[in-house]
Amino acid sequence: MDIEIIVVGKLKERYLQEGVNEYLKRLKSYADISVIELKDQSTDVRSEREEEIVLEKEADEIEKHLKSEYELIVTAIEGKLISSEDLAEVISENKDFGPGKIQIVIGGSLGIHPRIKAKAKRKISFGRITLPHQLMRLVLVEQVYRAFRIINNHPYHK
Amino acid sequence: MDIEIIVVGKLKERYLQEGVNEYLKRLKSYADISVIELKDQSTDVRSEREEEIVLEKEADEIEKHLKSEYELIVTAIEGKLISSEDLAEVISENKDFGPGKIQIVIGGSLGIHPRIKAKAKRKISFGRITLPHQLMRLVLVEQVYRAFRIINNHPYHK
Repeated sequence: MDIEIIVVGKLKERYLQEGVNEYLKRLKSYADISVIELKDQSTDVRSEREEEIVLEKEADEIEKHLKSEYELIVTAIEGKLISSEDLAEVISENKDFGPGKIQIVIGGSLGIHPRIKAKAKRKISFGRITLPHQLMRLVLVEQVYRAFRIINNHPYHK
Repeated sequence: MDIEIIVVGKLKERYLQEGVNEYLKRLKSYADISVIELKDQSTDVRSEREEEIVLEKEADEIEKHLKSEYELIVTAIEGKLISSEDLAEVISENKDFGPGKIQIVIGGSLGIHPRIKAKAKRKISFGRITLPHQLMRLVLVEQVYRAFRIINNHPYHK
C-alpha cells in the first residue's frame, strides 16, 4: 500500500513535528507513506482577490504532484463526515480492489481550490470544527494509523 | 470566565504536553483555565465486567470534582456534532447569561460512565472519528482557545 499525504505549509511547531513523525514511524509497518510539503503561499493575504490568487497558486503546486494512478482524497470541512471505521474501509477497498495507491490532500489556511476538490474521488471530513491545518495533519496521520490497526485487527487504544 | 477541564489519565507523550501547555498559556488572557487530571483506572482491563468497574471508579473520581455552580459539558462521540462557532456560542452564553463557569469532561480510553453523561447539560462531539483521548485533550484546548478568539473577534489562523 502506497499513501502520499500532500500538505500546504511547513510544520512550524516542534510538538506537531514530533507527533506526526511518531505516527509516520509506526505506519511504516503497514504502508509506504510519505508527506509532500508544498510552499504556503498565504503570507500577508488581505483581500478576497488575494485569497483567490493564493488558492490558485497552491492548486498549481498540488496539481504538479497528482498522479492519475492514485485515488485522490481531499479533506474538507464540508466533506462527507466519516468515522475511523469508514476511513479503514476506504483504505481497505483501495488496497484489495483498487490500485493500492492513495493521495490525501490537506489544504492551507484558506482551504483547497474547488478545481482540486473536483478532481477528487472523495471529499472527507473528520468533523465540523475548524482545526489549524497543521494540527489537522497530526489528526490525519493518527487516523490513517488507526485505519491500518482496524484493517489488520490489531488492538489500539482510544 | 472560569473553565475546568477534567480528564482521565496523565499525558504520556511529551509532544502532547507541549501542545496542551501552549494553548493553556495562550488561554490565560481570556479565562481562568485549569486541567484536573484523574487517575486512569484502565490498566489491564480484559472483560466487559472489568470495563464496567473501571468506568464506575472513574465516574466516582469525576464526581468528586463536579461543582453544582458550574455548567457541565461532556465530550462523547455520539454527542451533538458542533462547529467551532457553536462552541464559541456555548461559552459566550454561559459567560453573559450564566454562571461564567464551565466544566468540560474528557473520559478515559473506555469513555465516560452514563451516570456522568446524564448529569451533563450538554454532550458535545467534534466528529465521528475515534481519537486517542490524549490527542482529544489537545484538540479540546485548541477549540476552547479558538472559541475565545471568535467571541472576542480576534483573528486566528485555520
